[in-house]
Amino acid sequence: PEDILKLLGSEIFDKDLYESNETAGVVTGLAWTPVGGDILFIETLLTKGKGGLTLSGQLGDVMKESAMAALSYLRAHSDDYGIDYRIFDNYNIHIHVPAGAVPKDGPSAGVTMTTSIASALTQRQVKNKLAMTGEITLRGKVLPVGGIKEKILAAKRAGIREIILCNKNKKDIDEITPSYISDLKFHYVDMVDEVLEIALLKEKVRKPVKFVFPEDTKEVALN
Amino acid sequence: PEDILKLLGSEIFDKDLYESNETAGVVTGLAWTPVGGDILFIETLLTKGKGGLTLSGQLGDVMKESAMAALSYLRAHSDDYGIDYRIFDNYNIHIHVPAGAVPKDGPSAGVTMTTSIASALTQRQVKNKLAMTGEITLRGKVLPVGGIKEKILAAKRAGIREIILCNKNKKDIDEITPSYISDLKFHYVDMVDEVLEIALLKEKVRKPVKFVFPEDTKEVALN
Amino acid sequence: PEDILKLLGSEIFDKDLYESNETAGVVTGLAWTPVGGDILFIETLLTKGKGGLTLSGQLGDVMKESAMAALSYLRAHSDDYGIDYRIFDNYNIHIHVPAGAVPKDGPSAGVTMTTSIASALTQRQVKNKLAMTGEITLRGKVLPVGGIKEKILAAKRAGIREIILCNKNKKDIDEITPSYISDLKFHYVDMVDEVLEIALLKEKVRKPVKFVFPEDTKEVALN
Amino acid sequence: PEDILKLLGSEIFDKDLYESNETAGVVTGLAWTPVGGDILFIETLLTKGKGGLTLSGQLGDVMKESAMAALSYLRAHSDDYGIDYRIFDNYNIHIHVPAGAVPKDGPSAGVTMTTSIASALTQRQVKNKLAMTGEITLRGKVLPVGGIKEKILAAKRAGIREIILCNKNKKDIDEITPSYISDLKFHYVDMVDEVLEIALLKEKVRKPVKFVFPEDTKEVALN
Amino acid sequence: PEDILKLLGSEIFDKDLYESNETAGVVTGLAWTPVGGDILFIETLLTKGKGGLTLSGQLGDVMKESAMAALSYLRAHSDDYGIDYRIFDNYNIHIHVPAGAVPKDGPSAGVTMTTSIASALTQRQVKNKLAMTGEITLRGKVLPVGGIKEKILAAKRAGIREIILCNKNKKDIDEITPSYISDLKFHYVDMVDEVLEIALLKEKVRKPVKFVFPEDTKEVALN
Amino acid sequence: PEDILKLLGSEIFDKDLYESNETAGVVTGLAWTPVGGDILFIETLLTKGKGGLTLSGQLGDVMKESAMAALSYLRAHSDDYGIDYRIFDNYNIHIHVPAGAVPKDGPSAGVTMTTSIASALTQRQVKNKLAMTGEITLRGKVLPVGGIKEKILAAKRAGIREIILCNKNKKDIDEITPSYISDLKFHYVDMVDEVLEIALLKEKVRKPVKFVFPEDTKEVALN
Ligand SMILES: [Ca+2]
Ligand SMILES: [Ca+2]
Ligand SMILES: [Ca+2]
Ligand SMILES: [Ca+2]
Ligand SMILES: [Ca+2]
Ligand SMILES: [Ca+2]
Ligand SMILES: [Ca+2]
Ligand SMILES: [Ca+2]
Ligand SMILES: [Ca+2]
Ligand SMILES: [Ca+2]
Ligand SMILES: [Ca+2]
Ligand SMILES: [Ca+2]
Repeated sequence: PEDILKLLGSEIFDKDLYESNETAGVVTGLAWTPVGGDILFIETLLTKGKGGLTLSGQLGDVMKESAMAALSYLRAHSDDYGIDYRIFDNYNIHIHVPAGAVPKDGPSAGVTMTTSIASALTQRQVKNKLAMTGEITLRGKVLPVGGIKEKILAAKRAGIREIILCNKNKKDIDEITPSYISDLKFHYVDMVDEVLEIALLKEKVRKPVKFVFPEDTKEVALN
Repeated sequence: PEDILKLLGSEIFDKDLYESNETAGVVTGLAWTPVGGDILFIETLLTKGKGGLTLSGQLGDVMKESAMAALSYLRAHSDDYGIDYRIFDNYNIHIHVPAGAVPKDGPSAGVTMTTSIASALTQRQVKNKLAMTGEITLRGKVLPVGGIKEKILAAKRAGIREIILCNKNKKDIDEITPSYISDLKFHYVDMVDEVLEIALLKEKVRKPVKFVFPEDTKEVALN
Repeated sequence: PEDILKLLGSEIFDKDLYESNETAGVVTGLAWTPVGGDILFIETLLTKGKGGLTLSGQLGDVMKESAMAALSYLRAHSDDYGIDYRIFDNYNIHIHVPAGAVPKDGPSAGVTMTTSIASALTQRQVKNKLAMTGEITLRGKVLPVGGIKEKILAAKRAGIREIILCNKNKKDIDEITPSYISDLKFHYVDMVDEVLEIALLKEKVRKPVKFVFPEDTKEVALN
Repeated sequence: PEDILKLLGSEIFDKDLYESNETAGVVTGLAWTPVGGDILFIETLLTKGKGGLTLSGQLGDVMKESAMAALSYLRAHSDDYGIDYRIFDNYNIHIHVPAGAVPKDGPSAGVTMTTSIASALTQRQVKNKLAMTGEITLRGKVLPVGGIKEKILAAKRAGIREIILCNKNKKDIDEITPSYISDLKFHYVDMVDEVLEIALLKEKVRKPVKFVFPEDTKEVALN
Repeated sequence: PEDILKLLGSEIFDKDLYESNETAGVVTGLAWTPVGGDILFIETLLTKGKGGLTLSGQLGDVMKESAMAALSYLRAHSDDYGIDYRIFDNYNIHIHVPAGAVPKDGPSAGVTMTTSIASALTQRQVKNKLAMTGEITLRGKVLPVGGIKEKILAAKRAGIREIILCNKNKKDIDEITPSYISDLKFHYVDMVDEVLEIALLKEKVRKPVKFVFPEDTKEVALN
Repeated sequence: PEDILKLLGSEIFDKDLYESNETAGVVTGLAWTPVGGDILFIETLLTKGKGGLTLSGQLGDVMKESAMAALSYLRAHSDDYGIDYRIFDNYNIHIHVPAGAVPKDGPSAGVTMTTSIASALTQRQVKNKLAMTGEITLRGKVLPVGGIKEKILAAKRAGIREIILCNKNKKDIDEITPSYISDLKFHYVDMVDEVLEIALLKEKVRKPVKFVFPEDTKEVALN
């Protein structure tokens, strides 16, 4: 029995703190848990490949579908964001949500995933000390989500300064004592393009990936 | 335990309201729930690809088969609707039904899905303030469905003005107090081509997608 | 909880009635249920593709295998029925059995599926007011099935005039009061080619599909 | 509830009788059941394709692996049996075991499956009134199986005249009253090539399939 | 109910006896069972194909992974054993462990599987009256396994004369009465290359397979 | 019943000892078990192929995702480590964790897997008597893990001299009596590139694999 390895096990984490980040594709989301809110990070990494999508971090069905919707939205609107369409055929997309052993589910990371993928595809910096929560639909609508109060407290605790929410979640903020959140700036949005407008800076990250493509795909791209 | 993230959770939605929509591929359906009817939206989005089909929104087996039947019907009758057949080989089709965390099943969204896919493929506008419910079969028949009374009340509440139903559901409407539904216009149909005739306007949406194809597929299309 | 959509639900159907049908690939079968027999429709639709097979209508394992056997039989004997073999590589076959939410299983739709697929592949009309029931084997034998009495009553009720059965089911018919079924014509068969001989008319349907193939496959077909 | 179709259901079969058979790929096996032995038929059908393998008839895991072993054995020894190797790449193999709704499992159909596939691949006739039972291994050994006594009685009842068994099952035959089986001829074997020697006649079936291949594969076959 | 075929069932086997074997790819392993040890045979067969791997004989997860590790080891070290690397791309590998209906699991057949695959790939004879047991790792280490005493008794009973074990299992042999095993020769190893050195003779089997490759792969192999 | 083979079973292992290792791709990790810590080995082996990934050793979901994250990280940063990108398309990667029958799960082998894969890809030696434990994220962060005290004791017992840990695990080391661990050298890191800096020596292993590629891929690599 001494050979039954549980590499999983007693890992204990600190409450997460926001960390400024120089890497493309890393965005801060907000999560609700039975013992309070927490922040989480969505990480998107592109590797040369043939258009595969990998999701990791023990994501449930709803969260996986959320990632697929985020990706479809950005594929359909790549021209609007200056994304070279050839990336989708010549790179793989890996989306990971640490911590890797913690099961996660739900639709409320939709805006965070869209921003994370968009940052990886454009190599644009994500705004500092910004967090967000909201479901997305395929046409780009942002839907309201639950657990707002707990999420806001966790964001504050983690050092977040700006938060993006669905317009329909404004009423949840209105119920929080104003003085408590006076140092937070709220952005209320209806559509996911507003999210990207706020979250993605014009500047690229310090060492942006230079995407390369096989010669013969250039021609197709001109169509 | 404070690390067990439930991103799902206490999300609470308002009763849905119909919203006018400028995007191709978004159609309003009607659903029955144990506490009354509700409206729902079917969203279809096309992205460059190789003919893949993605279904999201926690759809059950029957609803997925319904989407597949809708798609086969439109593929088989693409000439009748002016759909360029090359789209099926050069684009992926993603069908999503918000809200993403709510499990959904049943065959009654068949007409709605057919209309949603047809609008995306033709980029034609969907008629305003219109909702519909009905099962489809592969030969294009529209079959009656249940929960009509609750669905009609939900449609009224949401601001819907016209409703498409199977001819065999007319008897369910005849049981509703006429004065209550006097501001609703009903369309009774037998076949799905009648649905598309009513639901799809001649005008394209404001910013229609321009479908592009690799040069060498043109030749095949001439066959 | 008001957001838990059950699009499935209280759908209630009338007893089915036979409907004359101008579409290729639609054939009437007979089913046994705990509360009596019923008729059902098998629909086969061909769409341009690469030889895929889609089965829908909540079919169980046995019924899916039945469809696969029907298809293999027709592929192996395509020359006997004037079927252009290139269809199998250049079209997808979708077989659907309404109503879409009703689970169905069993081998007794074997002859009906074979006839449905054959009609779609040849675009020949299916005989009017004809129903059938019987298992098939890969070598084309027709095997007897159960529930004959209930199935015959359902056929009569639905307006059917001719019925195809396995020779070994003749003894089940002999047990029914003759006067009751005097307006029905029975065809007893041993092999599935007899079924197709009876069920498929020489005339094509009104608007037959014109199958098209890529130029370069013609050569292969000449081998 | 009247719409819950059970197409499966009360089907009742007679005890099977051996039927002489003019089709390649149909071989008679022997099965043990809790209420006595039974004969069964293995049917193999080849259709133009790309080397796919389809198994139907509600076969369990062990029986599927048995079919795979039979196929691998014949692929590896195709030269010994005059099988054109190009068939494996240019045809699909479908193996079906009627009756389609009856679950079946176990390794004892190994010799029967090998003979059925070999007959389909060579289009040689299978000997008349012959049945067999025995497990095979990948190197071509025939292993003994159980239920011999019940299987022999079923074979006799069905009109079988010759039976192939593993040498190690001879002791089971020695326990049966000799007079009872005096009209049966037994073949005891150690290897599956002995089975094929006995079971496959030199003559081809009446209307043998003429295998056709794409022109360009001939060259590869010459290597 | 007489139609419920259990082809599985009362099969009873004798205790296995070692049989000398002229076929490449057949190697004798040792297994532990609750009622004593047993010998088993691993059979590897190569068929023309595209590099597929088939495992049969009701193997459990651990045993399947064991086969995959054995195969990867031999692919990575093919030069050391004179294996033509093109075999891996132009042949399928089928590994079967009779008896086909007996579920088997565990890592202790690692060395046996490696030897079986290596014999099939090189067509070299496997040493006579030799059995072996031991787990392998990907770097070629041989790990000790349990049930040694029962396995040795089974090997003796079956007529085995030489046994390969992990060095770390020597202590298990030291606990057996020496006179009892005086007619057995033990080989203790640390690495799997020692196993192959002992088990594979320089001579090829009597009728070795002649591997053939498409012309155009020769060039690639020269790189 | 004597035929129910449990090849799995009573295998008993010694406590593992560190063994110096001349093979690329073998790295020592640390595991927590209910009865104390243990060391484990991660083995990565490359074989010619088409970019497949095989994971074995009864790894759970979280550990498999950990391997996928490690691989994506190295693919995205291959230039930084002098890894020829063509390896990913022309070789398969097999990662195995002995012992093969012991189920393992958890994210704490992330750094070990990254180092193992990196060593296999670069053929650089792994530092002697070094062990490590830590989760990784896709952006290359090293996260703290649990069971540190037990893991350190196991490492000491096994003869390990240097250990790599996450900076945030330093507090766990500070709680161990200093004299007990005075012969161990600790490396605290924040990012996985620090891990590789420490663990991979400049020297290649004694017999490094020479990677070969098809001629025609060179051109693509120049882009
Ligand atoms: Ca946390
Ligand atoms: Ca789920
Ligand atoms: Ca709603
Ligand atoms: Ca279901
Ligand atoms: Ca009905
Ligand atoms: Ca079933
Ligand atoms: Ca029977
Ligand atoms: Ca099973
Ligand atoms: Ca045995
Ligand atoms: Ca298992
Ligand atoms: Ca250990
Ligand atoms: Ca799991």
